[in-house]
Amino acid sequence: MNLGLLFDEDFVGDNQVILRDRRRKHLEEVLKVDVGDRVPLGRVNGAMGLGTIDYLDDREARLTVTLDSPPPAPLPLTLVLAMPRPKMFRRVLQTCAALGVKDIWLINAYKVEKSFWQTPWLSDAHLRENLTLGLEQSKDTRMPEVHIRQRFKPFVEDELPGLMRERPGLVAHPGTDVPCPAHANTPATLCIGPEGGFIPYEVEKLVAAGARAVHLGSRILRVETAVPVLVSRLFDACEF
Amino acid sequence: MNLGLLFDEDFVGDNQVILRDRRRKHLEEVLKVDVGDRVPLGRVNGAMGLGTIDYLDDREARLTVTLDSPPPAPLPLTLVLAMPRPKMFRRVLQTCAALGVKDIWLINAYKVEKSFWQTPWLSDAHLRENLTLGLEQSKDTRMPEVHIRQRFKPFVEDELPGLMRERPGLVAHPGTDVPCPAHANTPATLCIGPEGGFIPYEVEKLVAAGARAVHLGSRILRVETAVPVLVSRLFDACEF
Repeated sequence: MNLGLLFDEDFVGDNQVILRDRRRKHLEEVLKVDVGDRVPLGRVNGAMGLGTIDYLDDREARLTVTLDSPPPAPLPLTLVLAMPRPKMFRRVLQTCAALGVKDIWLINAYKVEKSFWQTPWLSDAHLRENLTLGLEQSKDTRMPEVHIRQRFKPFVEDELPGLMRERPGLVAHPGTDVPCPAHANTPATLCIGPEGGFIPYEVEKLVAAGARAVHLGSRILRVETAVPVLVSRLFDACEF
Repeated sequence: MNLGLLFDEDFVGDNQVILRDRRRKHLEEVLKVDVGDRVPLGRVNGAMGLGTIDYLDDREARLTVTLDSPPPAPLPLTLVLAMPRPKMFRRVLQTCAALGVKDIWLINAYKVEKSFWQTPWLSDAHLRENLTLGLEQSKDTRMPEVHIRQRFKPFVEDELPGLMRERPGLVAHPGTDVPCPAHANTPATLCIGPEGGFIPYEVEKLVAAGARAVHLGSRILRVETAVPVLVSRLFDACEF
Protein backbone atom coordinates (compact mmCIF):
# COMPACT_ATOMS: atom_id res chain seq x y z
CA MET A 1 0.00 0.00 0.00
CA ASN A 2 1.95 2.96 -1.31
CA LEU A 3 -1.20 5.09 -1.26
CA GLY A 4 -4.25 4.56 0.93
CA LEU A 5 -7.40 4.74 -1.20
CA LEU A 6 -10.36 6.55 0.39
CA PHE A 7 -14.01 5.94 -0.47
CA ASP A 8 -17.01 8.20 0.11
CA GLU A 9 -18.02 6.18 3.16
CA ASP A 10 -14.69 6.94 4.84
CA PHE A 11 -15.40 10.68 4.97
CA VAL A 12 -17.01 12.19 8.04
CA GLY A 13 -16.34 15.79 6.95
CA ASP A 14 -14.88 17.56 3.94
CA ASN A 15 -11.31 16.77 5.02
CA GLN A 16 -11.87 14.28 7.82
CA VAL A 17 -11.76 10.52 7.43
CA ILE A 18 -12.09 7.57 9.77
CA LEU A 19 -10.49 4.25 8.81
CA ARG A 20 -11.39 1.04 10.59
CA ASP A 21 -10.33 -1.82 8.38
CA ARG A 22 -7.15 -3.19 6.80
CA ARG A 23 -6.00 0.39 6.21
CA ARG A 24 -6.05 1.22 9.93
CA LYS A 25 -4.15 -1.96 10.59
CA HIS A 26 -1.62 -1.08 7.89
CA LEU A 27 -1.06 2.35 9.46
CA GLU A 28 -0.45 0.78 12.83
CA GLU A 29 1.44 -2.40 12.00
CA VAL A 30 3.33 -1.70 8.78
CA LEU A 31 3.80 2.06 8.70
CA LYS A 32 3.90 2.24 12.53
CA VAL A 33 2.59 5.81 12.51
CA ASP A 34 2.06 8.16 15.46
CA VAL A 35 -0.29 11.11 15.87
CA GLY A 36 1.02 13.94 13.70
CA ASP A 37 2.59 11.68 11.05
CA ARG A 38 1.60 12.08 7.42
CA VAL A 39 0.75 9.33 4.98
CA PRO A 40 -0.02 9.35 1.23
CA LEU A 41 -3.75 9.06 0.49
CA GLY A 42 -6.06 9.50 -2.47
CA ARG A 43 -9.81 9.65 -3.01
CA VAL A 44 -11.26 7.11 -5.37
CA ASN A 45 -11.59 8.72 -8.83
CA GLY A 46 -10.28 11.95 -7.31
CA ALA A 47 -7.16 13.75 -6.17
CA MET A 48 -4.17 12.45 -4.21
CA GLY A 49 -2.29 14.05 -1.33
CA LEU A 50 -1.52 13.50 2.33
CA GLY A 51 -3.39 12.63 5.48
CA THR A 52 -2.25 13.67 8.96
CA ILE A 53 -2.96 11.22 11.77
CA ASP A 54 -5.16 12.96 14.38
CA TYR A 55 -6.03 9.91 16.45
CA LEU A 56 -5.21 6.20 16.34
CA ASP A 57 -6.30 3.31 18.53
CA ASP A 58 -6.90 -0.38 17.93
CA ARG A 59 -10.34 0.31 16.48
CA GLU A 60 -9.99 3.37 14.32
CA ALA A 61 -7.68 5.94 12.79
CA ARG A 62 -8.86 9.53 12.28
CA LEU A 63 -7.07 11.68 9.75
CA THR A 64 -7.25 15.17 8.25
CA VAL A 65 -6.57 15.01 4.54
CA THR A 66 -5.30 17.48 1.96
CA LEU A 67 -5.83 16.09 -1.52
CA ASP A 68 -4.60 18.42 -4.24
CA SER A 69 -2.61 16.55 -6.88
CA PRO A 70 -4.09 14.70 -9.84
CA PRO A 71 -3.70 10.93 -10.20
CA PRO A 72 -1.45 9.61 -13.02
CA ALA A 73 -2.88 9.61 -16.52
CA PRO A 74 -5.02 6.61 -17.40
CA LEU A 75 -3.78 4.35 -20.21
CA PRO A 76 -5.78 4.83 -23.42
CA LEU A 77 -6.24 1.08 -23.49
CA THR A 78 -9.25 -1.20 -23.57
CA LEU A 79 -8.24 -4.67 -22.45
CA VAL A 80 -10.36 -7.59 -23.66
CA LEU A 81 -9.32 -10.63 -21.70
CA ALA A 82 -10.50 -14.21 -21.98
CA MET A 83 -11.57 -15.01 -18.42
CA PRO A 84 -8.42 -16.25 -16.62
CA ARG A 85 -8.21 -19.27 -14.34
CA PRO A 86 -9.46 -18.20 -10.85
CA LYS A 87 -6.09 -18.92 -9.28
CA MET A 88 -4.54 -16.19 -11.46
CA PHE A 89 -7.55 -13.91 -11.73
CA ARG A 90 -7.00 -11.73 -8.67
CA ARG A 91 -3.38 -11.20 -9.57
CA VAL A 92 -4.30 -10.25 -13.14
CA LEU A 93 -6.84 -7.71 -11.85
CA GLN A 94 -4.30 -6.19 -9.46
CA THR A 95 -1.68 -6.02 -12.21
CA CYS A 96 -4.10 -4.34 -14.65
CA ALA A 97 -5.07 -1.77 -12.03
CA ALA A 98 -1.43 -1.14 -11.09
CA LEU A 99 -0.48 -0.56 -14.72
CA GLY A 100 -3.22 2.04 -15.26
CA VAL A 101 -5.61 -0.05 -17.36
CA LYS A 102 -9.09 1.46 -16.83
CA ASP A 103 -11.34 -0.55 -19.10
CA ILE A 104 -11.38 -4.34 -18.76
CA TRP A 105 -13.72 -6.70 -20.58
CA LEU A 106 -13.76 -10.30 -19.39
CA ILE A 107 -15.03 -12.52 -22.17
CA ASN A 108 -15.65 -16.16 -22.83
CA ALA A 109 -13.59 -18.27 -25.24
CA TYR A 110 -13.51 -21.92 -26.24
CA LYS A 111 -10.61 -22.68 -23.90
CA VAL A 112 -12.10 -20.83 -20.93
CA GLU A 113 -13.35 -23.60 -18.66
CA LYS A 114 -16.98 -23.16 -17.60
CA SER A 115 -15.98 -23.38 -13.95
CA PHE A 116 -13.87 -20.21 -14.25
CA TRP A 117 -17.07 -18.17 -14.31
CA GLN A 118 -18.14 -19.59 -10.95
CA THR A 119 -15.34 -17.92 -9.01
CA PRO A 120 -16.45 -15.70 -6.10
CA TRP A 121 -13.74 -13.23 -7.20
CA LEU A 122 -16.15 -11.98 -9.87
CA SER A 123 -18.48 -10.38 -7.30
CA ASP A 124 -18.60 -6.56 -7.28
CA ALA A 125 -17.07 -6.42 -3.80
CA HIS A 126 -14.16 -8.70 -4.69
CA LEU A 127 -13.52 -6.93 -7.98
CA ARG A 128 -13.36 -3.61 -6.15
CA GLU A 129 -11.10 -5.05 -3.46
CA ASN A 130 -8.53 -6.40 -5.91
CA LEU A 131 -8.60 -3.34 -8.16
CA THR A 132 -8.10 -1.21 -5.03
CA LEU A 133 -5.02 -3.24 -4.08
CA GLY A 134 -3.56 -2.58 -7.54
CA LEU A 135 -4.30 1.15 -7.35
CA GLU A 136 -2.82 1.37 -3.85
CA GLN A 137 0.31 -0.42 -5.05
CA SER A 138 0.95 1.96 -7.94
CA LYS A 139 -0.41 5.19 -6.39
CA ASP A 140 -3.45 5.81 -8.54
CA THR A 141 -7.06 6.64 -7.70
CA ARG A 142 -9.04 6.02 -10.89
CA MET A 143 -11.03 2.82 -10.40
CA PRO A 144 -11.04 0.60 -13.52
CA GLU A 145 -14.34 -0.62 -14.92
CA VAL A 146 -14.83 -4.32 -15.40
CA HIS A 147 -17.40 -5.63 -17.87
CA ILE A 148 -18.38 -9.29 -17.89
CA ARG A 149 -19.47 -10.93 -21.15
CA GLN A 150 -20.05 -14.63 -20.94
CA ARG A 151 -21.04 -15.03 -24.60
CA PHE A 152 -18.20 -14.63 -27.09
CA LYS A 153 -20.10 -14.17 -30.35
CA PRO A 154 -22.60 -11.46 -29.37
CA PHE A 155 -19.82 -9.50 -27.70
CA VAL A 156 -17.48 -9.72 -30.69
CA GLU A 157 -20.20 -9.01 -33.25
CA ASP A 158 -22.24 -6.37 -31.45
CA GLU A 159 -19.99 -4.56 -28.97
CA LEU A 160 -16.36 -4.97 -29.98
CA PRO A 161 -16.54 -3.06 -33.29
CA GLY A 162 -17.78 -0.01 -31.36
CA LEU A 163 -14.94 -0.27 -28.83
CA MET A 164 -12.40 -0.55 -31.63
CA ARG A 165 -13.64 2.49 -33.53
CA GLU A 166 -11.89 4.85 -31.13
CA ARG A 167 -9.23 2.43 -29.99
CA PRO A 168 -7.96 0.28 -32.89
CA GLY A 169 -7.88 -3.43 -32.06
CA LEU A 170 -5.05 -5.89 -31.71
CA VAL A 171 -5.30 -9.56 -30.89
CA ALA A 172 -2.24 -11.21 -29.39
CA HIS A 173 -1.92 -14.43 -31.39
CA PRO A 174 1.31 -16.45 -31.35
CA GLY A 175 0.44 -18.02 -34.71
CA THR A 176 0.61 -14.88 -36.84
CA ASP A 177 3.61 -13.28 -38.58
CA VAL A 178 2.97 -9.59 -37.81
CA PRO A 179 4.95 -8.36 -34.79
CA CYS A 180 3.05 -6.34 -32.20
CA PRO A 181 3.54 -2.61 -32.86
CA ALA A 182 5.93 -0.96 -30.43
CA HIS A 183 5.68 2.35 -28.60
CA ALA A 184 2.85 3.68 -30.68
CA ASN A 185 1.52 5.49 -27.60
CA THR A 186 -1.85 5.63 -29.31
CA PRO A 187 -5.21 4.36 -28.07
CA ALA A 188 -5.66 0.61 -28.49
CA THR A 189 -8.03 -2.25 -27.78
CA LEU A 190 -5.94 -5.29 -26.90
CA CYS A 191 -7.46 -8.78 -26.94
CA ILE A 192 -5.64 -11.52 -25.02
CA GLY A 193 -6.73 -15.15 -25.20
CA PRO A 194 -6.93 -17.84 -22.53
CA GLU A 195 -4.25 -20.41 -21.67
CA GLY A 196 -3.83 -22.32 -24.92
CA GLY A 197 -4.88 -19.26 -26.92
CA PHE A 198 -7.92 -18.28 -28.94
CA ILE A 199 -8.95 -21.01 -31.39
CA PRO A 200 -8.73 -20.14 -35.13
CA TYR A 201 -12.50 -19.45 -35.31
CA GLU A 202 -12.18 -16.91 -32.51
CA VAL A 203 -9.18 -15.20 -34.11
CA GLU A 204 -11.17 -15.02 -37.37
CA LYS A 205 -14.13 -13.44 -35.58
CA LEU A 206 -11.90 -10.90 -33.81
CA VAL A 207 -10.19 -10.04 -37.09
CA ALA A 208 -13.58 -9.76 -38.84
CA ALA A 209 -14.62 -7.32 -36.10
CA GLY A 210 -11.60 -5.19 -37.03
CA ALA A 211 -8.70 -6.38 -34.86
CA ARG A 212 -5.22 -6.98 -36.24
CA ALA A 213 -3.58 -10.28 -35.23
CA VAL A 214 -0.06 -9.66 -33.93
CA HIS A 215 2.58 -11.76 -32.18
CA LEU A 216 5.11 -11.16 -29.45
CA GLY A 217 7.86 -13.50 -30.64
CA SER A 218 8.22 -17.21 -30.06
CA ARG A 219 7.74 -17.13 -26.31
CA ILE A 220 4.32 -18.08 -24.98
CA LEU A 221 3.67 -16.01 -21.86
CA ARG A 222 1.11 -16.43 -19.12
CA VAL A 223 -1.56 -13.78 -19.08
CA GLU A 224 -0.17 -12.14 -15.94
CA THR A 225 3.19 -11.73 -17.70
CA ALA A 226 1.78 -10.97 -21.16
CA VAL A 227 -0.26 -8.00 -19.86
CA PRO A 228 2.71 -6.01 -18.49
CA VAL A 229 4.89 -6.99 -21.48
CA LEU A 230 2.25 -5.80 -23.93
CA VAL A 231 1.35 -2.64 -22.01
CA SER A 232 5.04 -1.74 -21.76
CA ARG A 233 5.46 -2.41 -25.49
CA LEU A 234 2.45 -0.37 -26.57
CA PHE A 235 2.94 2.59 -24.23
CA ASP A 236 5.82 4.57 -22.80
CA ALA A 237 6.14 3.16 -19.31
CA CYS A 238 7.57 6.40 -18.04
CA GLU A 239 4.30 8.10 -18.75
CA PHE A 240 2.08 5.38 -17.33
CA MET B 1 3.69 -26.79 -20.28
CA ASN B 2 4.05 -25.71 -23.90
CA LEU B 3 7.31 -27.62 -24.20
CA GLY B 4 8.40 -30.60 -22.10
CA LEU B 5 11.95 -30.06 -20.87
CA LEU B 6 14.19 -33.14 -20.88
CA PHE B 7 17.20 -33.69 -18.62
CA ASP B 8 20.14 -36.06 -19.10
CA GLU B 9 18.64 -38.54 -16.65
CA ASP B 10 15.52 -38.87 -18.84
CA PHE B 11 17.52 -40.32 -21.75
CA VAL B 12 17.86 -44.09 -22.08
CA GLY B 13 19.35 -43.89 -25.58
CA ASP B 14 20.41 -41.20 -28.05
CA ASN B 15 16.81 -40.48 -29.03
CA GLN B 16 14.86 -42.42 -26.43
CA VAL B 17 13.46 -40.97 -23.24
CA ILE B 18 11.37 -42.29 -20.37
CA LEU B 19 9.26 -39.87 -18.31
CA ARG B 20 7.79 -40.88 -14.99
CA ASP B 21 6.90 -37.72 -13.15
CA ARG B 22 4.67 -34.68 -13.60
CA ARG B 23 5.50 -34.72 -17.33
CA ARG B 24 4.05 -38.19 -17.79
CA LYS B 25 0.97 -37.09 -15.92
CA HIS B 26 0.69 -33.98 -18.09
CA LEU B 27 0.87 -36.11 -21.26
CA GLU B 28 -1.87 -38.36 -20.00
CA GLU B 29 -4.21 -35.96 -18.21
CA VAL B 30 -3.82 -32.60 -19.92
CA LEU B 31 -2.63 -33.40 -23.44
CA LYS B 32 -4.49 -36.76 -23.41
CA VAL B 33 -2.05 -38.28 -25.88
CA ASP B 34 -2.13 -41.73 -27.48
CA VAL B 35 0.67 -43.87 -28.87
CA GLY B 36 1.87 -42.28 -32.10
CA ASP B 37 1.03 -38.69 -31.06
CA ARG B 38 3.74 -36.05 -31.14
CA VAL B 39 4.48 -33.47 -28.48
CA PRO B 40 6.93 -30.54 -28.33
CA LEU B 41 10.05 -31.29 -26.30
CA GLY B 42 13.46 -29.77 -25.73
CA ARG B 43 16.68 -30.88 -24.05
CA VAL B 44 17.93 -28.64 -21.27
CA ASN B 45 20.52 -26.24 -22.71
CA GLY B 46 20.06 -27.95 -26.06
CA ALA B 47 17.81 -28.21 -29.10
CA MET B 48 14.02 -28.34 -29.30
CA GLY B 49 11.82 -30.56 -31.44
CA LEU B 50 9.21 -33.28 -31.15
CA GLY B 51 8.76 -36.51 -29.28
CA THR B 52 6.60 -39.38 -30.54
CA ILE B 53 4.80 -41.43 -27.90
CA ASP B 54 5.93 -45.07 -28.18
CA TYR B 55 4.36 -46.33 -24.98
CA LEU B 56 2.27 -44.87 -22.16
CA ASP B 57 0.89 -46.36 -18.98
CA ASP B 58 0.15 -45.04 -15.52
CA ARG B 59 3.81 -45.33 -14.52
CA GLU B 60 5.83 -44.20 -17.48
CA ALA B 61 5.84 -42.67 -20.93
CA ARG B 62 8.45 -43.72 -23.51
CA LEU B 63 9.16 -41.43 -26.42
CA THR B 64 11.43 -41.21 -29.46
CA VAL B 65 12.65 -37.65 -29.87
CA THR B 66 13.92 -35.60 -32.79
CA LEU B 67 15.46 -32.39 -31.51
CA ASP B 68 16.77 -30.19 -34.30
CA SER B 69 15.78 -26.55 -33.80
CA PRO B 70 17.64 -24.04 -31.64
CA PRO B 71 15.97 -22.51 -28.57
CA PRO B 72 15.08 -18.79 -28.69
CA ALA B 73 17.90 -16.30 -28.20
CA PRO B 74 18.79 -15.55 -24.57
CA LEU B 75 18.29 -11.97 -23.39
CA PRO B 76 21.60 -10.12 -23.01
CA LEU B 77 20.48 -9.18 -19.51
CA THR B 78 21.93 -9.68 -16.07
CA LEU B 79 19.20 -9.26 -13.47
CA VAL B 80 20.25 -8.22 -9.97
CA LEU B 81 17.26 -8.65 -7.72
CA ALA B 82 16.86 -7.86 -4.05
CA MET B 83 15.62 -11.16 -2.61
CA PRO B 84 11.82 -11.12 -2.99
CA ARG B 85 9.31 -12.15 -0.35
CA PRO B 86 9.00 -15.98 -0.46
CA LYS B 87 5.34 -15.78 -1.41
CA MET B 88 6.31 -14.05 -4.67
CA PHE B 89 9.67 -15.67 -5.18
CA ARG B 90 8.63 -18.72 -7.15
CA ARG B 91 6.50 -16.64 -9.47
CA VAL B 92 9.34 -14.17 -10.04
CA LEU B 93 11.69 -17.04 -10.93
CA GLN B 94 9.17 -18.53 -13.35
CA THR B 95 8.57 -15.13 -14.94
CA CYS B 96 12.30 -14.45 -15.37
CA ALA B 97 12.81 -17.86 -16.96
CA ALA B 98 9.79 -17.39 -19.24
CA LEU B 99 11.08 -14.01 -20.42
CA GLY B 100 14.51 -15.39 -21.37
CA VAL B 101 16.54 -13.93 -18.49
CA LYS B 102 19.57 -16.23 -18.07
CA ASP B 103 21.61 -14.59 -15.35
CA ILE B 104 19.95 -13.84 -12.01
CA TRP B 105 21.71 -12.52 -8.91
CA LEU B 106 19.70 -12.55 -5.69
CA ILE B 107 21.14 -10.00 -3.30
CA ASN B 108 20.48 -8.64 0.14
CA ALA B 109 19.21 -5.11 0.82
CA TYR B 110 18.16 -3.18 3.90
CA LYS B 111 14.47 -3.84 3.28
CA VAL B 112 14.91 -7.55 2.57
CA GLU B 113 13.65 -9.25 5.72
CA LYS B 114 16.11 -11.75 7.16
CA SER B 115 13.46 -14.46 7.08
CA PHE B 116 13.26 -14.24 3.27
CA TRP B 117 16.58 -16.06 3.06
CA GLN B 118 15.18 -19.02 5.01
CA THR B 119 12.75 -20.04 2.30
CA PRO B 120 13.07 -23.64 1.08
CA TRP B 121 12.51 -22.30 -2.45
CA LEU B 122 16.19 -21.31 -2.54
CA SER B 123 17.37 -24.93 -2.64
CA ASP B 124 18.99 -26.07 -5.89
CA ALA B 125 16.18 -28.52 -6.56
CA HIS B 126 13.44 -25.93 -6.07
CA LEU B 127 15.28 -23.31 -8.10
CA ARG B 128 15.60 -25.79 -10.96
CA GLU B 129 11.95 -26.80 -10.66
CA ASN B 130 10.63 -23.25 -10.90
CA LEU B 131 12.99 -22.20 -13.65
CA THR B 132 11.95 -25.33 -15.56
CA LEU B 133 8.29 -24.32 -15.25
CA GLY B 134 9.11 -20.93 -16.74
CA LEU B 135 11.10 -22.44 -19.62
CA GLU B 136 8.33 -24.96 -20.33
CA GLN B 137 5.78 -22.13 -20.38
CA SER B 138 7.64 -20.04 -22.92
CA LYS B 139 9.26 -22.86 -24.96
CA ASP B 140 12.90 -22.40 -24.16
CA THR B 141 15.61 -24.82 -23.06
CA ARG B 142 18.46 -22.68 -21.73
CA MET B 143 18.46 -22.96 -17.94
CA PRO B 144 19.10 -19.63 -16.19
CA GLU B 145 21.86 -19.41 -13.60
CA VAL B 146 20.97 -18.14 -10.14
CA HIS B 147 23.65 -16.65 -7.89
CA ILE B 148 22.93 -15.99 -4.23
CA ARG B 149 24.71 -13.14 -2.45
CA GLN B 150 23.57 -12.49 1.08
CA ARG B 151 25.95 -9.59 1.70
CA PHE B 152 25.17 -6.40 -0.18
CA LYS B 153 28.39 -4.45 0.15
CA PRO B 154 30.94 -7.10 -0.90
CA PHE B 155 28.76 -7.98 -3.89
CA VAL B 156 28.34 -4.38 -5.01
CA GLU B 157 31.98 -3.45 -4.46
CA ASP B 158 33.74 -6.59 -5.63
CA GLU B 159 31.52 -8.35 -8.16
CA LEU B 160 29.04 -5.90 -9.65
CA PRO B 161 31.58 -3.64 -11.42
CA GLY B 162 32.83 -6.68 -13.36
CA LEU B 163 29.29 -7.67 -14.38
CA MET B 164 28.58 -4.11 -15.54
CA ARG B 165 31.70 -3.85 -17.69
CA GLU B 166 30.12 -5.88 -20.47
CA ARG B 167 26.53 -5.11 -19.60
CA PRO B 168 26.09 -1.48 -18.51
CA GLY B 169 24.14 -1.11 -15.29
CA LEU B 170 20.76 0.42 -14.53
CA VAL B 171 19.09 0.66 -11.15
CA ALA B 172 15.31 1.06 -11.13
CA HIS B 173 14.76 3.83 -8.60
CA PRO B 174 11.44 5.70 -8.41
CA GLY B 175 13.15 8.71 -6.83
CA THR B 176 15.32 9.76 -9.77
CA ASP B 177 14.49 12.01 -12.74
CA VAL B 178 16.09 10.03 -15.59
CA PRO B 179 13.57 7.86 -17.44
CA CYS B 180 14.57 4.26 -18.11
CA PRO B 181 16.03 3.98 -21.65
CA ALA B 182 13.66 2.35 -24.10
CA HIS B 183 14.27 -0.29 -26.75
CA ALA B 184 18.03 -0.01 -26.65
CA ASN B 185 18.27 -3.74 -27.40
CA THR B 186 21.78 -3.64 -25.97
CA PRO B 187 23.26 -5.72 -23.13
CA ALA B 188 22.30 -4.46 -19.68
CA THR B 189 22.63 -5.22 -15.99
CA LEU B 190 19.35 -4.29 -14.31
CA CYS B 191 19.15 -3.86 -10.53
CA ILE B 192 15.69 -4.04 -8.94
CA GLY B 193 15.13 -3.26 -5.28
CA PRO B 194 12.91 -4.90 -2.67
CA GLU B 195 9.38 -3.83 -1.67
CA GLY B 196 9.89 -0.29 -0.43
CA GLY B 197 12.92 0.14 -2.71
CA PHE B 198 16.64 0.40 -2.16
CA ILE B 199 17.52 2.90 0.58
CA PRO B 200 19.56 5.99 -0.48
CA TYR B 201 22.83 4.42 0.76
CA GLU B 202 22.23 1.40 -1.46
CA VAL B 203 21.40 3.50 -4.51
CA GLU B 204 24.60 5.49 -3.90
CA LYS B 205 26.64 2.30 -3.70
CA LEU B 206 25.07 0.93 -6.89
CA VAL B 207 25.73 4.22 -8.68
CA ALA B 208 29.30 4.30 -7.35
CA ALA B 209 29.74 0.80 -8.81
CA GLY B 210 28.74 2.20 -12.21
CA ALA B 211 24.95 1.84 -12.47
CA ARG B 212 22.71 4.61 -13.73
CA ALA B 213 19.61 5.33 -11.61
CA VAL B 214 16.49 5.44 -13.81
CA HIS B 215 12.75 5.60 -13.18
CA LEU B 216 9.70 4.07 -14.79
CA GLY B 217 7.23 6.87 -14.18
CA SER B 218 5.17 7.58 -11.10
CA ARG B 219 3.74 4.09 -10.69
CA ILE B 220 5.34 1.82 -8.13
CA LEU B 221 5.14 -1.74 -9.43
CA ARG B 222 5.59 -5.02 -7.65
CA VAL B 223 8.71 -6.88 -8.64
CA GLU B 224 6.76 -9.52 -10.56
CA THR B 225 5.20 -6.76 -12.68
CA ALA B 226 8.29 -4.55 -12.85
CA VAL B 227 10.41 -7.34 -14.35
CA PRO B 228 8.25 -7.89 -17.46
CA VAL B 229 7.63 -4.13 -17.85
CA LEU B 230 11.37 -3.39 -17.73
CA VAL B 231 12.38 -6.33 -19.93
CA SER B 232 9.78 -5.32 -22.50
CA ARG B 233 11.01 -1.73 -22.34
CA LEU B 234 14.70 -2.58 -22.71
CA PHE B 235 14.37 -5.27 -25.38
CA ASP B 236 12.24 -5.90 -28.42
CA ALA B 237 9.70 -8.41 -27.15
CA CYS B 238 9.31 -9.86 -30.63
CA GLU B 239 12.88 -11.07 -30.52
CA PHE B 240 12.80 -12.38 -26.95
